[in-house]
Amino acid sequence: MSKLDFVIEELVTANRVLANEGIVDSFGHVSARHPDNPNHYLLSRARAPERIEGGDIVEYTLEVEPIDKTAPAPYLERFIHGAIYEARPDVHAVVHNHSPSVIPFGVTSKKLKPFLHMCAHIGHEVPTWDSRDKFGDTPLLVSDMAMGRDLARLLGSRPTTLMRGHGATVVGRSVRHAVFIAIYLEVGAKLQMQAMPLGEIKFLSAGEIDQIVGRLNDYTLNRAWENWARRAGREMQEG
Amino acid sequence: MSKLDFVIEELVTANRVLANEGIVDSFGHVSARHPDNPNHYLLSRARAPERIEGGDIVEYTLEVEPIDKTAPAPYLERFIHGAIYEARPDVHAVVHNHSPSVIPFGVTSKKLKPFLHMCAHIGHEVPTWDSRDKFGDTPLLVSDMAMGRDLARLLGSRPTTLMRGHGATVVGRSVRHAVFIAIYLEVGAKLQMQAMPLGEIKFLSAGEIDQIVGRLNDYTLNRAWENWARRAGREMQEG
Amino acid sequence: MSKLDFVIEELVTANRVLANEGIVDSFGHVSARHPDNPNHYLLSRARAPERIEGGDIVEYTLEVEPIDKTAPAPYLERFIHGAIYEARPDVHAVVHNHSPSVIPFGVTSKKLKPFLHMCAHIGHEVPTWDSRDKFGDTPLLVSDMAMGRDLARLLGSRPTTLMRGHGATVVGRSVRHAVFIAIYLEVGAKLQMQAMPLGEIKFLSAGEIDQIVGRLNDYTLNRAWENWARRAGREMQEG
Amino acid sequence: MSKLDFVIEELVTANRVLANEGIVDSFGHVSARHPDNPNHYLLSRARAPERIEGGDIVEYTLEVEPIDKTAPAPYLERFIHGAIYEARPDVHAVVHNHSPSVIPFGVTSKKLKPFLHMCAHIGHEVPTWDSRDKFGDTPLLVSDMAMGRDLARLLGSRPTTLMRGHGATVVGRSVRHAVFIAIYLEVGAKLQMQAMPLGEIKFLSAGEIDQIVGRLNDYTLNRAWENWARRAGREMQEG
Repeated sequence: MSKLDFVIEELVTANRVLANEGIVDSFGHVSARHPDNPNHYLLSRARAPERIEGGDIVEYTLEVEPIDKTAPAPYLERFIHGAIYEARPDVHAVVHNHSPSVIPFGVTSKKLKPFLHMCAHIGHEVPTWDSRDKFGDTPLLVSDMAMGRDLARLLGSRPTTLMRGHGATVVGRSVRHAVFIAIYLEVGAKLQMQAMPLGEIKFLSAGEIDQIVGRLNDYTLNRAWENWARRAGREMQEG
Repeated sequence: MSKLDFVIEELVTANRVLANEGIVDSFGHVSARHPDNPNHYLLSRARAPERIEGGDIVEYTLEVEPIDKTAPAPYLERFIHGAIYEARPDVHAVVHNHSPSVIPFGVTSKKLKPFLHMCAHIGHEVPTWDSRDKFGDTPLLVSDMAMGRDLARLLGSRPTTLMRGHGATVVGRSVRHAVFIAIYLEVGAKLQMQAMPLGEIKFLSAGEIDQIVGRLNDYTLNRAWENWARRAGREMQEG
Repeated sequence: MSKLDFVIEELVTANRVLANEGIVDSFGHVSARHPDNPNHYLLSRARAPERIEGGDIVEYTLEVEPIDKTAPAPYLERFIHGAIYEARPDVHAVVHNHSPSVIPFGVTSKKLKPFLHMCAHIGHEVPTWDSRDKFGDTPLLVSDMAMGRDLARLLGSRPTTLMRGHGATVVGRSVRHAVFIAIYLEVGAKLQMQAMPLGEIKFLSAGEIDQIVGRLNDYTLNRAWENWARRAGREMQEG
Repeated sequence: MSKLDFVIEELVTANRVLANEGIVDSFGHVSARHPDNPNHYLLSRARAPERIEGGDIVEYTLEVEPIDKTAPAPYLERFIHGAIYEARPDVHAVVHNHSPSVIPFGVTSKKLKPFLHMCAHIGHEVPTWDSRDKFGDTPLLVSDMAMGRDLARLLGSRPTTLMRGHGATVVGRSVRHAVFIAIYLEVGAKLQMQAMPLGEIKFLSAGEIDQIVGRLNDYTLNRAWENWARRAGREMQEG
């Protein structure tokens, strides 16, 4: 199997996993940088994640033009992906999602921070991008490179950012890594809402976060990936 | 396929989708204006939405008499549908539901308003109709045209209204549109209850709501519809 | 089919429905008065509701002795059923359950009251029986007729009572009626916990409750029963 | 069937049950003391619980060395199991899990205590082990015998302990017993969060807890086990 075929199959599994675990509903998307050409990336045509098959994956330039001019209609918000791949050479996969528990943190001033060890991967603190700050009243969608680059700027070197009234964007060094962080971002947000009424929360210390992030290896990612893939009716590829 | 057959199949799918997504339980219903006769509409006989098949759909006049006098027993609350089709020529589908998260907003003075972009379609603010205001102590059911018309009056030109101690009514320009709004009404209500304890909520601005509503097209509705239909064991009809 | 066979099949369906709708977990039970002998009742041997089959149903006297002395081991808490059938000739079915949302109301002084029309059937207000009041420290189980009769006394002519630290008991004029009330008791309790933080709740008025209860007929019960039965993999019997 | 084969099959069922009931996600594990050698125990290789099969179970010494030096990679946190079997001769099964509702109690000063009779088995009060107290900033994982023994010391003679920012550890006299307690620990934690906003909670008295714990027999455990096993696609072994 070619590297490209491998990544396409990973993306199909990622879409199904994200839908099955409740991280995306009929909207949201996940992309991967092209394994042979870092200036291109792979993303499904505009379709609900739970329905995506290999033939739906389209190759785009970072400026988000499809390589195949006859490709079916794209997601409007593909600019999120292009702008992040442009700004972050270390990033090889991007998830954009509206998972339910992250939304409340994006519309209030409450900060989302990790206190469960598995959630350390969301970063020390999750910032919120507000489209209104620079772009005023819009439909809130990241619909051109200027908006994508503004989002990428706030993301900086972080793994995650919230988007006010909209959702979140999560990046990783591989498809499995980005999906893992997106799932634990939802877990962490839900837990923080549940823990708040119980009193002051002991968040992870900066040192704990760095140690947990530092020791994350493919071995751990694959344990979760095997499980999520099968729950979604897919097999884990050996990679 | 005739336009009528198309709409009947849409209604079957709509019932199954609403049940599968948790918007209706054993009660609640969805109707469509007759595609060939704007003074008639189509609604299932009295049956739980999850169980409805094509043969259950009955044609009614706006005054809610069945065209076929041998038709099986109707929903008592069919007056909701007739009165709204009478008042709103722009409306081609009506959902009446008791989805869990909308109930609390109908029995308190807390206003349901959108802050997630997908929820802009519920309208700038959702009013609450209270049967007690004009009709006093009743079983809360909309059981004649006087009650139906009173509800339609409060609805006005809006897409949604709550009903105190009872549920909600949602209207759309097509079956897919009304189902879409009914699902995001539940999503929005649940999110608002979760966000409240986190601090002051940044709701969508009036301009954002208008822009989001203005750009909603069949393309977006169909992306969700394909997904919801398949999750409920139905295929999306080409329309 | 004999009346007895009919009721046995109803009980099997009731057990599966209550498990499938989350009203009982591995514990909890549902009984019916014997259709030919009002001094006997029918209840499964001690088994998880989701697993029960027709052969598990055992006939008991109101003093809770099995008619067949070789019957398999009974539920310890069968005294709940016997004592209620003894005190309430109008009751033909009893559900005892630990559904999650009713537990918090049983251990606090917050009163559970209906504000959704479907929940009117739980009664004007749900009292709480506390085993500690008369029986001191016990394992909280209703393990003899003295405890059963004390519970029946508090229940009085009501449809439901909570039990502190334990669950609830619900009665009806038929198996379908008792299951219906048990399900909407859980729905109502969950909704009340969700509505409380939104402000003062407009509960149903006494007149509204009486009107809703007064018009409940088999027609409505059967609409829900058909749906719940099929969701649990059972067909509705014509009765 | 040998005692060893029986226990291996119990562990497979336990893993599937814990996953199916939402007590473990892709992480967490359950072990059993070896039935023929109290100085050894049985635990799966590092794999998600929902995926585990009989061939994944590995035999370890209490110092957590695999007997078969060619065994596949172990869970890093096997030290939890070894240290508890070393300290507690009465314990024959250990569950380590991250079930969602226990996490908030581990990161706040709110005490988790039982008020539902089924939850008496979690103990009079559940303590919280904080890795930071003795070991400072770590990845929070119990990665050597010193940490395992420190956790076992806090556990003392109790059935359960929480772990700050991490999860819980539960012990029992059999696999079925430990799984039962782990499930009701999650149930109790979720209920306590729901009951708190309703006012002061009437917890079980010390006498009630002791009576409930004292009368727990295999009969009750098996009623639940049969149900949970079948829900997870497994049959209950006769034991």
